[in-house]
Amino acid sequence: MRYDIAIIGTGPAGVSAALTAKNRNKKFILIGSRTGSEKIRKTHRIVNYPGLPNVSGEALNQAFLGQLKDAGIEITEKRVANIFAMGDYFSLQVDQDFIEASTVILATGTSFGKPIPGENENLGRGVSYCATCDAPLYRGKETVVVGWDPKEESEAAFLSETCSKVTYIPMYKGDGKLPGKVEVVTGVKPASVGKADGKMRLSLVPLAKGTEAAVDHIAADCVFLLRESVAPDKLVPGLQLDGSHVKADRGMATNLPGFYVAGDLAGLPYQIAKATGEGNIAAISAAQYLDQKAREATKQSVRQSV
Amino acid sequence: MRYDIAIIGTGPAGVSAALTAKNRNKKFILIGSRTGSEKIRKTHRIVNYPGLPNVSGEALNQAFLGQLKDAGIEITEKRVANIFAMGDYFSLQVDQDFIEASTVILATGTSFGKPIPGENENLGRGVSYCATCDAPLYRGKETVVVGWDPKEESEAAFLSETCSKVTYIPMYKGDGKLPGKVEVVTGVKPASVGKADGKMRLSLVPLAKGTEAAVDHIAADCVFLLRESVAPDKLVPGLQLDGSHVKADRGMATNLPGFYVAGDLAGLPYQIAKATGEGNIAAISAAQYLDQKAREATKQSVRQSV
Repeated sequence: MRYDIAIIGTGPAGVSAALTAKNRNKKFILIGSRTGSEKIRKTHRIVNYPGLPNVSGEALNQAFLGQLKDAGIEITEKRVANIFAMGDYFSLQVDQDFIEASTVILATGTSFGKPIPGENENLGRGVSYCATCDAPLYRGKETVVVGWDPKEESEAAFLSETCSKVTYIPMYKGDGKLPGKVEVVTGVKPASVGKADGKMRLSLVPLAKGTEAAVDHIAADCVFLLRESVAPDKLVPGLQLDGSHVKADRGMATNLPGFYVAGDLAGLPYQIAKATGEGNIAAISAAQYLDQKAREATKQSVRQSV
Repeated sequence: MRYDIAIIGTGPAGVSAALTAKNRNKKFILIGSRTGSEKIRKTHRIVNYPGLPNVSGEALNQAFLGQLKDAGIEITEKRVANIFAMGDYFSLQVDQDFIEASTVILATGTSFGKPIPGENENLGRGVSYCATCDAPLYRGKETVVVGWDPKEESEAAFLSETCSKVTYIPMYKGDGKLPGKVEVVTGVKPASVGKADGKMRLSLVPLAKGTEAAVDHIAADCVFLLRESVAPDKLVPGLQLDGSHVKADRGMATNLPGFYVAGDLAGLPYQIAKATGEGNIAAISAAQYLDQKAREATKQSVRQSV
């Protein structure tokens, strides 16, 4: 089974792309958080989104999610670890599975943060962005999980079922409900990561200035850095960037044929109307690309049968 | 008095631009129809506008207009006949007046139609797009008005106060309530326009196939062609087009510094979410352009005072 479109992200850009993809009768999957956009949820009030005057972020987010539900569009809440351009289609690693899609619309926002020193160099060699994906590699081994959102606690809990030791470092207030097997270290943030004595060494600094860190480093076999989203160039090898954004044209097409981008990830300004507009454009561009490919395939088969 | 931004058009792109311009505290004027977008009003149902599920065109248009009202944004219902780039600002002919604006956002849609043969060649030399603007030139003379919308009837009525003869050709059903002085010709449409015997000669063909036109031409001193909007290259000398659309970058900037475009006029797809997104982007681009110019002016004056 190959999807026509894989839409990644459930903020305004992803929601808009999904509504238009549905409208265009495309077979698509929408992957992202079931609670929508955290950034919008945390926005007090939005005064310039046309159609919903002076709306709270919470209400706008709910309106988007409710509209998806009414349209019969489901959200697949999984983590996309990698997207590979295979020529004619894309292969997406989604948790431990691989799915295929003829086109992709990436709308994951900009909450991927700056990499810590050593992160890029060791990615896939002791640094990982997906516990569900890489857990099998670290069976019986020691791991550290840095989580930027409380939902990552379930990833740490999952790892603790097979790893010999799991340390969890929350990058938010509170340490949630973790199994006793998971050691929680608070008040620190990662400073750098590197190889030392056959293990990964995660250096830590105090989270708040003027405080002292209880622990200045942790050694483990793997360091999981679980941010809300993964930087686009890490996620999609070969994707052309423009600074920290993905380079796109007015049709939201990127340098990879069939790969589109929308929303904050596609550049400034970070605005909701811009994001929904771009999601809409990206879905229509993807639909046109698919239709064009279908026409070419028909021509080809006509030519062959003549 | 010079406006920071002149926004032209009250469809979704213009509404969105106005809401964001207001949000950015810019001094702007919004020029267009007080009834919003006719195209949206006539749309039965819209299923892919994020935030307002399964909304009727009428309701969405009302939501847009209501939001403008709540935000204290007034619509100036006048006709923009010309926009001239003056270097540091733009001069707009609005009915019979001229106004100035540092930046312009053009969001007038694509309902300008194809020019009839002879129209372009005689524009400003016997063919006009604005009765209010050019009425003084044709005092005591004979004019023909072709109106694509019932609201143009008031233009014909206005002309009849000073012209010796006014003929009105409605390009829609019904002939409205025109003063007895205006002769109404129905069932025909303009085929071409040209100079003949010192007058303009407007050739006419039957509106419906298989019918016969009661009149095959009208001679007059001026032919007014009143479509919903004027083609962008006629409205703005020097504006670069891309086919029938205005060429723009992802920031909605055109080839004229300080001149932005949004919505259908800026290209396909003709979608509401795209239009609101582009209006939002255009307003932010205009605000940034203004802020940049203000910073440069400050630097300049600091330099001069040193």
